Order: sequence, then structure tokens, then C-alpha cells
Amino acid sequence: MNGFDQIMPVVDLAAAVVFATTGALVASRKEMDILGFLWLGAITGVGGGTVRDLLLGLPVFWVANPAPMALCLLAAGLVHFTAHLVASRYRVLLWLDAVGMALVTVAGTAKATDAGAGPLIAVVMGVVTASVGGIIRDVLGQEPSIVLRREIYVTASAAGAAVFIAAHAVDVPQPMAMALGAVTAFAIRGLAIALDWSLPVYRPRPGRNPDDI
Amino acid sequence: MNGFDQIMPVVDLAAAVVFATTGALVASRKEMDILGFLWLGAITGVGGGTVRDLLLGLPVFWVANPAPMALCLLAAGLVHFTAHLVASRYRVLLWLDAVGMALVTVAGTAKATDAGAGPLIAVVMGVVTASVGGIIRDVLGQEPSIVLRREIYVTASAAGAAVFIAAHAVDVPQPMAMALGAVTAFAIRGLAIALDWSLPVYRPRPGRNPDDI
Amino acid sequence: MNGFDQIMPVVDLAAAVVFATTGALVASRKEMDILGFLWLGAITGVGGGTVRDLLLGLPVFWVANPAPMALCLLAAGLVHFTAHLVASRYRVLLWLDAVGMALVTVAGTAKATDAGAGPLIAVVMGVVTASVGGIIRDVLGQEPSIVLRREIYVTASAAGAAVFIAAHAVDVPQPMAMALGAVTAFAIRGLAIALDWSLPVYRPRPGRNPDDI
Repeated sequence: MNGFDQIMPVVDLAAAVVFATTGALVASRKEMDILGFLWLGAITGVGGGTVRDLLLGLPVFWVANPAPMALCLLAAGLVHFTAHLVASRYRVLLWLDAVGMALVTVAGTAKATDAGAGPLIAVVMGVVTASVGGIIRDVLGQEPSIVLRREIYVTASAAGAAVFIAAHAVDVPQPMAMALGAVTAFAIRGLAIALDWSLPVYRPRPGRNPDDI
Repeated sequence: MNGFDQIMPVVDLAAAVVFATTGALVASRKEMDILGFLWLGAITGVGGGTVRDLLLGLPVFWVANPAPMALCLLAAGLVHFTAHLVASRYRVLLWLDAVGMALVTVAGTAKATDAGAGPLIAVVMGVVTASVGGIIRDVLGQEPSIVLRREIYVTASAAGAAVFIAAHAVDVPQPMAMALGAVTAFAIRGLAIALDWSLPVYRPRPGRNPDDI
Repeated sequence: MNGFDQIMPVVDLAAAVVFATTGALVASRKEMDILGFLWLGAITGVGGGTVRDLLLGLPVFWVANPAPMALCLLAAGLVHFTAHLVASRYRVLLWLDAVGMALVTVAGTAKATDAGAGPLIAVVMGVVTASVGGIIRDVLGQEPSIVLRREIYVTASAAGAAVFIAAHAVDVPQPMAMALGAVTAFAIRGLAIALDWSLPVYRPRPGRNPDDI
């Protein structure tokens, strides 16, 4: 094939681990037990891909193959014993999370395209894969939801997915189209992090007033 | 057939657009970015029907056919630029929302019946279709959930679904049964709006104490 | 067969009713209408099993067979009229809930094993079945989520599921393995209730700080 079938599981795994780490960090802020870390880490890690697969009518990716779940639990457990180290390296995590978001956006979009979805639905699936885990994490952790504050997150994901779809439509080979989409998503998210010197994940800031734009 | 297959997509579309508008109005209250409007509008618009389809084991209605998602995003984007106008016409929206609820209740109930569900489960599916989108909207928007405040909403939906099922059971033709159910749901909800002169969506009010009834 | 097919529906039913009762008790604390009781009772009662079935790609258990939904609605409606009695017997309910958790954990784990899931995923499904209903209840009722406070709950469920899987792996007959798992889950949860003389469900307490362990 085009190598997609080999890349996809690795991307899903890497993104799940990164997202699980962010879930476990929220658990550490809430002073939860180790089982709470595992729960919140696992649901954050696999939540987005799970909803994507259910919507597309595909088997849920971590039920047939337990590796993503195992790695999410391992990552969350590790954070339980090292949260004080990771928390002080929060900025590193923000960037890791941006990498995870970029990878999972194009992987989710590509999986939707392969399942026969049209361009709009494929972009929606990319955004769902990238954002639903974080949304569940924030609702369960009683933090302001990702859609209420990290707007540039969803924006970056949607832009990356759209670039992938556009490149795919003009017959750019899939690995190149995926790279273009991921770089776009990561660049927008990275600029948002770099230009906003606060830490947007844990400090809610008001979005722009629609009348100001 | 009986015309149901022609009516259903139109009802789903109309209801999705109305619900997406309510989601976008919550986004405007939270001063979100345009992507936040699109996210909250889309999930509010298609959430109820999505959960219904997943529970029934059917393909999710907006994955195969992108029109509902496209219209939800369009409506939410329009609200982004016109929220100040719509907000001042909030009462109009309440009534539109009541129309959407009435339509989608009977459509959801009928779809469940067609999928082989018995009467109880069909009524549950009607209520799920009418209420889950709003529940997700309120949880993500950190507003008091619809089940905590708009009790007459769920009541109206359940009554409309039950009337449709009862009419269907005594061999009333399906379009007539759907009309009876929708009118019932709309009438109960409309009376609730008309007799309660506050704006129940955005101002939580305590339900009746169970001991008082 | 091994009798599993006969036990399973009864266990699902019993657990659904117990969980529905806890959902309705939250509704009573929030002074909801009877429809609110039914909604919250039903979603709490069937939520965990529903998510388990969707993840496993199986038909949702209460859609084909309406008995669990009917009993959940009945239980929630009964609580509506008797909440003042039940609330004063809250400690009894805590123990009933522990029984429900123990039963549904092994039933969920066994159902996942039967569907071909490996040991890790089967344990996850047991925990999902036991905890997701309560999580949805707490999110909708705007109470601190179960993963934020009742840590011993998830721990007990995970331990019971693991014991069942381990016993199954060394060829203990399934009914005996299920009994071992359920007793383990119940014993751990029971000790947590007995040794913690507060009422952990309605009073959030901070988890242990990860640095203290």
C-alpha cells in the first residue's frame, strides 16, 4: 500500500500517550488516587479516537489491540510518581501536546477518508480525534472545557485537517499530504503558544468578543 | 412507501439547524472564538440524533450525508456575526427551539420504531434525540444541565413521543400520528413558555420539591 | 452452556435498578421534576453497560430487551415518591450500591471476555460498566465526579475484575471465577465504606497527594 497502514498505529499510539500524560497531570492537580490517574489518563488518551471510530462505524481501535490502552495506563501511572517533575516542565508538555494534536488530526482525518467520508466529515473527524479526549478530561476534572478556552487548539486542528484534505484532493501523495497537514496544525498551535506567554491550558482566558472581530 | 423516508431528512435538517443556533448562542454568552461557535453549534445540532443512531446500531446520520453538519456549521457561523441581533430576539428562539424539539421527538421515535424498537424504547429514543444535544451543550458551556432546569422540555418531548406511539398502535397513518405527536409536544412546551414569563433557558430555577406534589 | 447466559441478564437488571436508584437520589437532592428523576435514573442505570456494549461493538443491551429500561424508570419513579424515606436510609443504599458495583464489574468483564477481548481490555470493560453510569450522573447533577472522589470505588472494581480474569486464566470454572471477583470487589469497597465513617458519595474529600505516598 502507501505505508499508511504502518504509520497509523504508531501515530495513534504516540498521540494516546501524550494525551494520557495531560490527563494524568490534571489528576495530579486534583490530588487524585493512582486509580484516578489511570482513569483520567486512559480516557483522555483514547477518548478522541474512540468517538471517531464509533461515529465512523469502525471497531474501536484499542479494543481489538490493547497496546494503546496499556501504554496510556503506563504513562498515567508514571506521571503519578513523577508529577512534581513533569509539572515543573509544563512548557515542555504544552509542546508535546501540540505535536500529539498535529499527528492525531491528520491520522483521524485520513482514517475517515479511508472509511469513505467526504471532505467536510473527514475534517470534522480530525478535529474530533484531536479534541474530544481533552474535552472529556476537562469535564471530569471540572476544568473549563477546551472549547471554552483553548480556541487556537481547535482552530489549528481544523486548519491542519483542511490542508491535508486539500493536498489529497490535488493528488499529493498521502504521506506528503499528511506531513503538510501536520506541519500546518503544529505551526499554528506553536505560534499560539509562543506568542501567548501565559500557560493557556490551566488558566482560562476569555475568548475574543465576537463583536470585536 | 408512506412518505416517511422523504420527511425524515428534512425534519432532521431543520431540527439540527435550530439546535445548532442555540449552541452558538451559548458560545456567544461565553465569548468564544468562531471555532468555538462551530464546535458547540455542531455538537448541539447533531448530538441527539448521533446518540440515537449509535444506540440503535444504525449509521450515524450526518456521516454518510454531510448536509446536516454543513448546515449546523453554517448556522453557527452566522450566529457568530449576528449574535447581538439574535440575542435580543431570544424569545423568538425559544419558540423555534420548541418547534425543533417537537419535530425531532417524533422523528426520533419513528426512526426507532422503524429500526424494530418496542414502544418504551421508541419513546426513550425520541426523548434522547430531543434532549441529548442540549445536555452536551450545557455541560460543555458550564450551564446548569437541561435535566436540572428545563423539566417541562423533557416532559413535553416524552408526551409527544407517547402520543405518536399510541396513535401508531391504533393504526393511525404514520404522517397523521407524527403530526399528533409533534403538536402535543409543541403545545405542552409552548404552554410552559407562555405561562412562565421568565426565560427558563438561561436562568436556572429550582424544580418542584418532590414532597410538594 | 455454563449458565452464564442465564446469570448475565439478571445481574445486569439488578445492577441497573440499584444504579437507577442512586441517580434518582441525586435528582431528589437537586429538587428535580419527576421527568428529571426518570432521566437521571435511567441514564445512571444503563449508562455503564451502554458504553461497554458500544465499545465492544455489541447491540446495546436495553434496546433489544426493554426490561432494564422499564425497571430503571420504575425504580426512579418510586424514589420520586419515597426519596425522604430512602434518603434517611442512605447508608443502606451505599451498601446496595457496593453490591451492584461488584456484580456489574464481573458481568461486564465476563461479557468482554466472551466478545473476544484480552485480559487488560476485559478489566477495563468491567471498570467502565461499573463506573460510567455514576460518572454521567455526577456530571449531569453537577456533583464532583466519581473519579475525583470515590477512588476506592474504581479501585475495588478494578481489583474484582482482575481477580476474575486471573481465576479464569487458571481454569477456575466461570461461575466460581465470577463469585471470586465479585466478592473481592465487594470486600474492598465494603472495607472502604466501613473504615471511612463519613458518607463518601455526597461529601467530596481530597485524594491523597501523590507526593505523600
